Amino acid sequence: MKDIQIRPADEQDFESMWSIFCAHVVAGETYPFTTATSREAGHAYWLGPGVSSFVATAGGARVLGMYRLVPNQVGRGHHVANASFMVSPSAQGAGVGRMLGEHCLGEARRQGFLAMQFNHVVSTNTAAIRLWKKLGFSIVGTLPKAYRHKRLGYVDAYVMYQLLQDPDHWPTVDA
Amino acid sequence: MKDIQIRPADEQDFESMWSIFCAHVVAGETYPFTTATSREAGHAYWLGPGVSSFVATAGGARVLGMYRLVPNQVGRGHHVANASFMVSPSAQGAGVGRMLGEHCLGEARRQGFLAMQFNHVVSTNTAAIRLWKKLGFSIVGTLPKAYRHKRLGYVDAYVMYQLLQDPDHWPTVDA
Repeated sequence: MKDIQIRPADEQDFESMWSIFCAHVVAGETYPFTTATSREAGHAYWLGPGVSSFVATAGGARVLGMYRLVPNQVGRGHHVANASFMVSPSAQGAGVGRMLGEHCLGEARRQGFLAMQFNHVVSTNTAAIRLWKKLGFSIVGTLPKAYRHKRLGYVDAYVMYQLLQDPDHWPTVDA
Repeated sequence: MKDIQIRPADEQDFESMWSIFCAHVVAGETYPFTTATSREAGHAYWLGPGVSSFVATAGGARVLGMYRLVPNQVGRGHHVANASFMVSPSAQGAGVGRMLGEHCLGEARRQGFLAMQFNHVVSTNTAAIRLWKKLGFSIVGTLPKAYRHKRLGYVDAYVMYQLLQDPDHWPTVDA
């Protein structure tokens, strides 16, 4: 797909982001959110305080997908980033997820994160797992039956992880 | 230790809970929170909406330790519980942690949780890891250098997990 750009998300994008979010939530195969999620909760998730969000757009207009980047923990776990990705069903298979993933890893490094963790990758979401492995992530944990898949019932979820900087060059711990 | 009781925490307990919390946070060896954590954030963590908290008391009065029990995820991950435990430094080694752990597993089953997950057990916290293994948890994941330990620098954290009910008897997934 040509002319895909990735830029920080803003309030004007929320309508499109919410519609992509709802498409994933209705399917019930990738994220824990259910259709009971309020628009307000969705807004806080994507555009709330402390959240870095980016959208991929075609020709500067239509939102094809998005990601959010946050610290995975407070304080003493704050050097590990967490990120979530969603691509519009109508844009899937066009490499948008990969572009967002690469952008996100660059953005996380730019923000000074030293590692990135995905807490809950649904084990049946093979396209995502393949992509994350290509982008450097490893499965570091398996959570038995931790996801209630809409079609398949209880399935495992994976914890995926990668270091973003050589640990020999990590900043000193300042008590 | 005799006469230890475990009961739901209430507002009157918060002063003691906050002081135990601060002792752990200052040590910087077990939880990601730093001393920058506000009292309000501490209150939300222990007594906020949606949090089940219990305290262990000696003779009904002095708070020796506490735990909080919450769903680890929303919606499609809501059947997995998460819990956090803190014991007063002055009560450590007296079996309070074990009593809280056993109570918490019972309470989680009572509330209908099907599994329990600890997201971030500091790998150098060997007493805790030994206890969780005794209580049925397994290490299901290792997060390299995910914890910034105050004395030891970056150390691994573990994800620990156990099923609380036989999966053959889990409720059917209702789309």
